[in-house]
Amino acid sequence: MRTRSRFHRTPRWLRRIAWSTLLGLAILVVWPAAAWAQDAAAESAFVLNTFSFLVWGALVMWMCAGFTMLESGSVRSKSASMICLKNIGLYAIAGLAYYIVGYGVMYTDVGAVIGSLDLFYGPSADEIRLLGGDESALGAVVGNNYAVTSDWFFQMVFVATTASIVSGALAERVSLWAFFGFTALLTAVIYPVVGAWTWGGGWLSQMGFQDFAGSTIVHSTGGWAALAALLVVGPRWGKYRKDGSVKSTPPSNIPAVTLGVFILWLGWFGFNGGSVLALDGAANVLLMSNVLVNTNLAAAAGVVTALLVSKPILGRLDLFAGLNGAIAGLVAITAGPDIADGRIAILIGAIGALLCTAGLKLLERRKVDDVVGAVPAHLFAGIWGTLATSIAAGANVGVQLLGVVSVGAFVFSLSWIVWTVLDRTVGVRVSKEVELIGQDAAELGVDAYPEFVLMVDPDEDNDYRDA
Amino acid sequence: MRTRSRFHRTPRWLRRIAWSTLLGLAILVVWPAAAWAQDAAAESAFVLNTFSFLVWGALVMWMCAGFTMLESGSVRSKSASMICLKNIGLYAIAGLAYYIVGYGVMYTDVGAVIGSLDLFYGPSADEIRLLGGDESALGAVVGNNYAVTSDWFFQMVFVATTASIVSGALAERVSLWAFFGFTALLTAVIYPVVGAWTWGGGWLSQMGFQDFAGSTIVHSTGGWAALAALLVVGPRWGKYRKDGSVKSTPPSNIPAVTLGVFILWLGWFGFNGGSVLALDGAANVLLMSNVLVNTNLAAAAGVVTALLVSKPILGRLDLFAGLNGAIAGLVAITAGPDIADGRIAILIGAIGALLCTAGLKLLERRKVDDVVGAVPAHLFAGIWGTLATSIAAGANVGVQLLGVVSVGAFVFSLSWIVWTVLDRTVGVRVSKEVELIGQDAAELGVDAYPEFVLMVDPDEDNDYRDA
Amino acid sequence: MRTRSRFHRTPRWLRRIAWSTLLGLAILVVWPAAAWAQDAAAESAFVLNTFSFLVWGALVMWMCAGFTMLESGSVRSKSASMICLKNIGLYAIAGLAYYIVGYGVMYTDVGAVIGSLDLFYGPSADEIRLLGGDESALGAVVGNNYAVTSDWFFQMVFVATTASIVSGALAERVSLWAFFGFTALLTAVIYPVVGAWTWGGGWLSQMGFQDFAGSTIVHSTGGWAALAALLVVGPRWGKYRKDGSVKSTPPSNIPAVTLGVFILWLGWFGFNGGSVLALDGAANVLLMSNVLVNTNLAAAAGVVTALLVSKPILGRLDLFAGLNGAIAGLVAITAGPDIADGRIAILIGAIGALLCTAGLKLLERRKVDDVVGAVPAHLFAGIWGTLATSIAAGANVGVQLLGVVSVGAFVFSLSWIVWTVLDRTVGVRVSKEVELIGQDAAELGVDAYPEFVLMVDPDEDNDYRDA
Repeated sequence: MRTRSRFHRTPRWLRRIAWSTLLGLAILVVWPAAAWAQDAAAESAFVLNTFSFLVWGALVMWMCAGFTMLESGSVRSKSASMICLKNIGLYAIAGLAYYIVGYGVMYTDVGAVIGSLDLFYGPSADEIRLLGGDESALGAVVGNNYAVTSDWFFQMVFVATTASIVSGALAERVSLWAFFGFTALLTAVIYPVVGAWTWGGGWLSQMGFQDFAGSTIVHSTGGWAALAALLVVGPRWGKYRKDGSVKSTPPSNIPAVTLGVFILWLGWFGFNGGSVLALDGAANVLLMSNVLVNTNLAAAAGVVTALLVSKPILGRLDLFAGLNGAIAGLVAITAGPDIADGRIAILIGAIGALLCTAGLKLLERRKVDDVVGAVPAHLFAGIWGTLATSIAAGANVGVQLLGVVSVGAFVFSLSWIVWTVLDRTVGVRVSKEVELIGQDAAELGVDAYPEFVLMVDPDEDNDYRDA
Repeated sequence: MRTRSRFHRTPRWLRRIAWSTLLGLAILVVWPAAAWAQDAAAESAFVLNTFSFLVWGALVMWMCAGFTMLESGSVRSKSASMICLKNIGLYAIAGLAYYIVGYGVMYTDVGAVIGSLDLFYGPSADEIRLLGGDESALGAVVGNNYAVTSDWFFQMVFVATTASIVSGALAERVSLWAFFGFTALLTAVIYPVVGAWTWGGGWLSQMGFQDFAGSTIVHSTGGWAALAALLVVGPRWGKYRKDGSVKSTPPSNIPAVTLGVFILWLGWFGFNGGSVLALDGAANVLLMSNVLVNTNLAAAAGVVTALLVSKPILGRLDLFAGLNGAIAGLVAITAGPDIADGRIAILIGAIGALLCTAGLKLLERRKVDDVVGAVPAHLFAGIWGTLATSIAAGANVGVQLLGVVSVGAFVFSLSWIVWTVLDRTVGVRVSKEVELIGQDAAELGVDAYPEFVLMVDPDEDNDYRDA
Repeated sequence: MRTRSRFHRTPRWLRRIAWSTLLGLAILVVWPAAAWAQDAAAESAFVLNTFSFLVWGALVMWMCAGFTMLESGSVRSKSASMICLKNIGLYAIAGLAYYIVGYGVMYTDVGAVIGSLDLFYGPSADEIRLLGGDESALGAVVGNNYAVTSDWFFQMVFVATTASIVSGALAERVSLWAFFGFTALLTAVIYPVVGAWTWGGGWLSQMGFQDFAGSTIVHSTGGWAALAALLVVGPRWGKYRKDGSVKSTPPSNIPAVTLGVFILWLGWFGFNGGSVLALDGAANVLLMSNVLVNTNLAAAAGVVTALLVSKPILGRLDLFAGLNGAIAGLVAITAGPDIADGRIAILIGAIGALLCTAGLKLLERRKVDDVVGAVPAHLFAGIWGTLATSIAAGANVGVQLLGVVSVGAFVFSLSWIVWTVLDRTVGVRVSKEVELIGQDAAELGVDAYPEFVLMVDPDEDNDYRDA
């Protein structure tokens, strides 16, 4: 007779229990491991998505420095301090207004037209529990895919961009307080309403309007607001002479303008790349990669095109047009950088720059005194870019056009009303005396470059300066 | 009779072995999969934490460019080259001194007061093994949670910030070599000792002192060192006239100052955000997100507050105060940006800016000639921010106060001794001749803007320049 | 008699099926979980690697702004607008040329010497399928380890760096169109061929040539091209006087130069850090961390060394030499920042800066008019750095030397031929009149600082300016 192991001598029912236990253990280990791996993946996605918002958002914030350099270099040196003040001020105001009111209007419980007055946007209740050490909130937090404040941060720097577009156009004569007042309204209400219609999920979004990173929502909105303000505020004294000629007001600091454009170009990688809104998964990061490449190609094509067409259109090889061409190329690709073919990005950027350069000429002819070319670069190229997505990415051209027109009608008319009301009440521009002396000396008491001896402007009554 | 499968015809003992083998295989697959997933998670955490140090650290390095622009724009143009030299030099010296000595003093085997003289900090032995291809070191490397040099990198850019604070205050008259000598000591010893007490785990840390990203440890330390140096070095020639009036020395390049502030603001996202010290897991990145938002809100509130209070305090709407208000808001929030409520961040930033603006006035009255307002922005707002964490984040107010006082006593007195010794030996300021001509021309032979014709300063003996 | 459970009353064959099913289920769960975890890890690697290319690549793009600031501050103000135009133009041209031709020549199906004429590089077919929603392409996409366009983006900013090196050397007299023409050729063909030999896997790579981030491939290539161009184009009018003396042409804007160097230093973290080419796994990010630290140490040593040796070599404490010392230190460490010991990085950077400072003197003696010191900083330090890897990282010194010589021979001779052909056909420099007036006013009609009154240059026939 064969020797039987001790195990086999145990009763049959005990053996059955042993086997069942072993099998159960195996399954007990399997399920948690699988579940844990899936939880870890969800948490990893949360980390990556949030980090993407923060890193790219920081780069978009940097665009405010770009606008500051571009604008302070574009104005005459007697106005450079004031434009610096307007730019640091608008970034601060935009950040506060969007925190207190704007984000809620744009994103919280959006119906067709508008969100809610959910003041002081902040972390979710689950997030506060997790930060307080309550680990049971982890699942709910991670389920949102990103930290809610990281999205706020990314959206906030976008609204600041919109406000930055306005400041440059109106430089050298707009009243500081009127500008700050309009900025508060633009960033608390006007932009957020446009945002609610679109990225917030409102009626335009429901119709299928496509605007990847904001050719219309950010850049045209800023451009329309600037255009309305330009018409109310009017041109600088002496810019358009009675004999029909135009007074040349060249940029006072070309390296500063160029630095500004490089900053904007860099920041735009965050602007468009971060607008993928997610970093988890191969498809998202692949899209992000193509977005950066297309953004760069469109800007490069914009520079080359603007330089080439500046001679026929403006009568000379024009650096300022070339720099604006980069911006126009960037604005134009912003509605649809998520295309697969770089050649189309080149085409979109090139046409944007062409329209911008022609727009510079058009505005001069129409005596609209846009100091930095904000309307051609952000509005004209923004409209083109929004429509171009129909060709490049299959958006419905009718819906795109409807979006362009309705955003334009809303932003332009509301801005025009606001500026007109400001004009009739507090006033929107400084006195002629202040304008000729320059806001820096007259209002701030701080010249931008107080030690450098400046050229005498033969057109101006320089007695003001000595006064 | 039923046909039996071939398997069932095998002997019972063989069937048992087969079953056992199958079950064992299942378990064999389960365990490694679970273990592998956990190892992968640990490695993923290592990757994210290290990457966070590197990316945010690079942004903090960028703050040195911000200080350079802020300072070179704030001084008169005759001193702008020298301040550029001091800034690029201090960043280089800080990086070397912290590599050779500082990091060890701050972090290696810290007792209550000081770390060790562990010279030339570098990768760990395990890391060197892994880099050499020894995969068995992977576990030990990953177990540290981040690459040790990435932490060094992040801490090094902090010490450079501390040194940057000093350079601006003393601009236009401090001797280059005295400044470089003090910088070496500050970054090799003084700052690391303060760091050992706190972040290094020393006595203040053990008592519960809280300073998230360094309102006291970085900014007040820099501010105290600057204040001590200011008292020893004294004001610039002619700054405070015998009749009690103060000579106006406006910034020579406002756009450069503004650019500097934007750079600092951007860099501060790395400064505070990276100070979470980890990117792995939802709780860490959630914290990081809130930190960035609070940082931005405090700075925005600082700008608005400083602009509003500049008129009553300084007698005019003051751009320079507004720009310093951003910095003061940033400094103030730095001790506790990890709070959940943005409204408190706004309050902290606003009060910081108020104190900074009042501090600008106070220093002028006390005839302390701080060229860039480093003491009000970094010391006054830094003290406030450190105390504010008691209100906002529940830190013990007595411990916070003890930290403020003890760091102040140590840094101020040691700095005062060092500057006094330097004064009595090599000298700490340039001759009156050099100062009036400007260090750029007199010591470097390189004017910052050699081609621009400069205004004649009526107060100064301009024969020096012609000499 | 014992009661038997219901299960035991089922027939034996049914029980066997039940057991088998349970076991099978366990295995069915185990295998996918393990496989899913491995797939997730591969996808996570894809995400991290791609993101690394994008973030660090964006920082490298920023270097173009650094070169622009460095160069526009280094030239005289009459040439600052033109150098801005050249820099924004070269970045645009490089981006387009590398897209259309260059990348294919460098990386697609490289044999020993050259890749293929694979025009318009873009996403892979698998990537386009995945972007189109075809999930079955995920495995193939992820299998590439990174998005192909992210690599393109990272390589594109490198070629732009190469072109940037050339622009500064030739400032103030080279014809815009000749420069743009050469830039197109450099970025479409010359640099890509060098790249194909090395990073593309060609003959030098096969021999074991080591150049981590491009001391030779990027910096020496740019330096050789600049040197060839300098010899053909010749020095600026009046730079070297008949009596053997050298006309001083100091930088017109020192803060701009300093800002440029800080930008380059920051961008270099992306340049060298991103050149790890991967972020997945502890070993890669550990390497990245050491690379950043060594990069910083070498640059810091470069600044300190250049300042120390500037007095004996150049006769004075020289800020411009100190700033170039940072760049030389960065260039020198670029071939081998992946070493474990920071002390060696310091040594490599210090010697690079020493060679650069001596090189500034040498070029002046040889009457080679390199306006920004591009040849000493990028070529001399680049050669040194490439050879130094033999000492520091065990590269074969013969192969390193062969790489240096063959790249030099190829780039220098081809560049010399191209510049000579350009010289004999379209011309490579502007007329003496244009040069004396300055290209800004004469060719662009845009002075860089049109409002600042400029010093009269006693050496020049200033009638030109009035003309």
